[in-house]
Amino acid sequence: MKVRLLVLAGMATLLAGLYLPARPAEDGSEEREIRRLMEEQQAAWNRADVEAFMKDYWNSAELTFAGSGGVTRGWQPVLERYRERYRDAQAMGHLDFSELEVHVLGKDAAFVLGRWHLKREKDEPGGVFTLVFQRFPEGWRIVHDHTSADEAKR
Amino acid sequence: MKVRLLVLAGMATLLAGLYLPARPAEDGSEEREIRRLMEEQQAAWNRADVEAFMKDYWNSAELTFAGSGGVTRGWQPVLERYRERYRDAQAMGHLDFSELEVHVLGKDAAFVLGRWHLKREKDEPGGVFTLVFQRFPEGWRIVHDHTSADEAKR
Repeated sequence: MKVRLLVLAGMATLLAGLYLPARPAEDGSEEREIRRLMEEQQAAWNRADVEAFMKDYWNSAELTFAGSGGVTRGWQPVLERYRERYRDAQAMGHLDFSELEVHVLGKDAAFVLGRWHLKREKDEPGGVFTLVFQRFPEGWRIVHDHTSADEAKR
Repeated sequence: MKVRLLVLAGMATLLAGLYLPARPAEDGSEEREIRRLMEEQQAAWNRADVEAFMKDYWNSAELTFAGSGGVTRGWQPVLERYRERYRDAQAMGHLDFSELEVHVLGKDAAFVLGRWHLKREKDEPGGVFTLVFQRFPEGWRIVHDHTSADEAKR
């Protein structure tokens, strides 16, 4: 009788687990990890290391980068777009991310809304970005980036 | 004995369900549902019904709309932004969504990348957008919208 009760209790627990929606860890570990990646990204940019900056982008032909120039598709074309637009340390300037909001969308997905700001000798462009992150066996990666420049600062 | 085997088989099935990652339905129902919502949205815009167009946006103070004007936060402010920019049917013009890609991010989240195009008497603005969708008990809703206008067409 005891065994049967234990089995029933076990099944009830399993059923509850099965029918609850997939939830992110409650300890905020996703948000911490994503914020850490973005700090690394900012640091890579600020030592003019575009390849290291691109490390957190999904290394796939399906990576997408959207903006007022349309859609760039694939890790390599996104890297080349950055290299063309920011040819040297002077063009890259000093990058600051701010007002970062990490919105966890489930166990393995999140999006980040934030502001970017570049301090350069001749100008200070800035704007907002949306990053969609997915968790892969190797860690969190940006699968989609939508970046805008502020109207006034274009 | 038969009963015990059935219980064991049931538990094995439940355990498998519990430890497999949360996966979207394999029948593409999320994508179909989201595409249907976007068709409704397009139709609402094209009869100049901004409130119906806004029906699929999360009715929350946490809804965010990002673009070259920065971030607008909250369902009501997003509605007002649309009303200010598109005062009448002539300003709203004829909307077409195209090149829609629905990327499912899990059981209850997805993002859509697509193009928008407005045909108006005097101009034809267009660009790309990113919509982040989450599934609520009442259905799929846009929780974040990042919209850009094409550089050449601004």
